[in-house]
Amino acid sequence: MQMGQFQGVYSRKGVFICLEGGDGAGKSTQSKLLCEWLESLGHSVLLTREPGGTRAGQQMREILLDPATGELSPRAEALLYAADKAQHVDHVIMPALERGEVVVTDRYVDSTLAYQGAGRAIPEEELAAIARWATCDLRPHLTVLLDQEPDHGLDRFTGRDRIEGEPVEFHQRVRQHFVSLAQVDPDHYLVLDAREPIATIHGQIRGRVEGLL
Amino acid sequence: MQMGQFQGVYSRKGVFICLEGGDGAGKSTQSKLLCEWLESLGHSVLLTREPGGTRAGQQMREILLDPATGELSPRAEALLYAADKAQHVDHVIMPALERGEVVVTDRYVDSTLAYQGAGRAIPEEELAAIARWATCDLRPHLTVLLDQEPDHGLDRFTGRDRIEGEPVEFHQRVRQHFVSLAQVDPDHYLVLDAREPIATIHGQIRGRVEGLL
Repeated sequence: MQMGQFQGVYSRKGVFICLEGGDGAGKSTQSKLLCEWLESLGHSVLLTREPGGTRAGQQMREILLDPATGELSPRAEALLYAADKAQHVDHVIMPALERGEVVVTDRYVDSTLAYQGAGRAIPEEELAAIARWATCDLRPHLTVLLDQEPDHGLDRFTGRDRIEGEPVEFHQRVRQHFVSLAQVDPDHYLVLDAREPIATIHGQIRGRVEGLL
Repeated sequence: MQMGQFQGVYSRKGVFICLEGGDGAGKSTQSKLLCEWLESLGHSVLLTREPGGTRAGQQMREILLDPATGELSPRAEALLYAADKAQHVDHVIMPALERGEVVVTDRYVDSTLAYQGAGRAIPEEELAAIARWATCDLRPHLTVLLDQEPDHGLDRFTGRDRIEGEPVEFHQRVRQHFVSLAQVDPDHYLVLDAREPIATIHGQIRGRVEGLL
């Protein structure tokens, strides 16, 4: 069953940056600081997120994260994340990159691979094929992984939604998965210790992003 | 990009019947008559539909059919239909078949291939790969195609939802696609003229389904 051959597509017009990591790692804080800094330099910046970066995606996000949804089958969950991603890439990310903007997204394909692949019963190559098909294999120029022990972040969040309500072992597998994705492609990753002070992390991200502008 | 090899899976415990066709072809009427007849014979029968055969699927159906959703990218639409299908197969269809029941569904994989493949810009082999992955390639023992000229059904329905609001040419391509799917595998299809009287069509369906029980 062929899904087409993908080798990874990188925008030549805009700059595409992704922040990844477990819940509570500081992705939204660092995304905002990064965007404020980029805007202060005069760049057109789009800050977005997954799931839920589009109107339709917001509704998908509600299905995915609302405990009232009940049990989603692993395949249904993977396809719903992929649908959100397809809408996000086609209607938000790609148009902004084509306009030459800097796009910063809070979560992207790695979150799907890490959460679904590490936690569920679906082979990772199948998850990757679906996610690549959904996104036309559009990849970030840089993924910043805010890495930490999962129970640090969970102190503040346990039980808040369907995914965060999973046991700590699940989140440990997710963390390992994120790290292993970064190790395969160091040119496109920056792995940072999420327990460092906010300003320290922001400075490290700026240092790496400067080389992309 | 491998999605696994599928050859088509048919339940050995239950009987799986699908009704397909354009909007207004009489699928819901014939589904109900079929189920009433099967129950009168003493069978345990489950009547279901796509999209929206599960609680989560209902929410997906709203996203797919509500005009307020706005434009969905073709990939997002395909993946959302596939997510609905995965949840439907895993939580409704397969459990009922495992219990030895007769499952009758109003729309299934052929609708995805016909509507998405005939009307949109996605290669059919990719749509088929996604749909087969979503359903583990579980196939109906019999698909009844209620075939008719599209504008006959559209008289009653034009503009009711996102899909039905498409131009007549779209629905003509959908119709041709349904017919071509049936021609490839006549052992598992029954193509009927949807303009025949309700009782005539019901009798033709009964005649073919009797051979499956």
